[in-house]
Amino acid sequence: MLGRLNHVALAVPDLAAATAAYRDTLGARVSAPQALPEHGVTVVFVDVGNTKIELLEPLGEDSPIAAFLEKNPSGGMHHVCYEVDDILAARDHLKASGARVLGDADPKIGAHGKPVLFLHPKDFFGTLVELEQA
Amino acid sequence: MLGRLNHVALAVPDLAAATAAYRDTLGARVSAPQALPEHGVTVVFVDVGNTKIELLEPLGEDSPIAAFLEKNPSGGMHHVCYEVDDILAARDHLKASGARVLGDADPKIGAHGKPVLFLHPKDFFGTLVELEQA
Repeated sequence: MLGRLNHVALAVPDLAAATAAYRDTLGARVSAPQALPEHGVTVVFVDVGNTKIELLEPLGEDSPIAAFLEKNPSGGMHHVCYEVDDILAARDHLKASGARVLGDADPKIGAHGKPVLFLHPKDFFGTLVELEQA
Repeated sequence: MLGRLNHVALAVPDLAAATAAYRDTLGARVSAPQALPEHGVTVVFVDVGNTKIELLEPLGEDSPIAAFLEKNPSGGMHHVCYEVDDILAARDHLKASGARVLGDADPKIGAHGKPVLFLHPKDFFGTLVELEQA
């Protein structure tokens, strides 16, 4: 079921400073910032060849990463996203296995325009897992 | 400078349970556990095609992930590892950029038998970054 790693999301309090660190200090290829108001984040994509790192800064009042940054003011690793071929089949298998899907368990359209689900970190040893239909 | 994502390391308190969750609940391909006493961890590799996820459980008295699991008893995302072509050139560039290399800044032989360095998470917005010479 589990496909390739689509991205690793890192929450950062200052996207411009984080982008500079990845570009200048680590020598990575970074995108221009993209505001995604419907997802409550501004994102910079770091292209590392085999996958991407997403630097996320809160945008707007109800950012889904605001609580994380309150707990981790310097930033930190927020979630990992894996691709699946069929997100409804994946969801049904996960629920049958006892894993908790966040929200109402209906896939939402994620930041890449594709259906996504998030799984409860308590079922995956403290790691927030996103699944995206590839 | 920054090459491909070699792995994402997840610290877990119970490697057998975490392996079962990745294999059975997420449907991922997992390796047999490998004890690495010189690195203070037992590791299971989760092959996701384009990179790998490493599930790490503490091994022995001085495990480098023991303090992390004391702070995060359920487990969590521990570090990301990127490949570089020349770890000494990478280190010198990083130091010249003001980034802090952990320890004495001499590369050590990592869990894959290759030279590695770790960078201070405060310089990378709360994310512990490992560099491995590919």
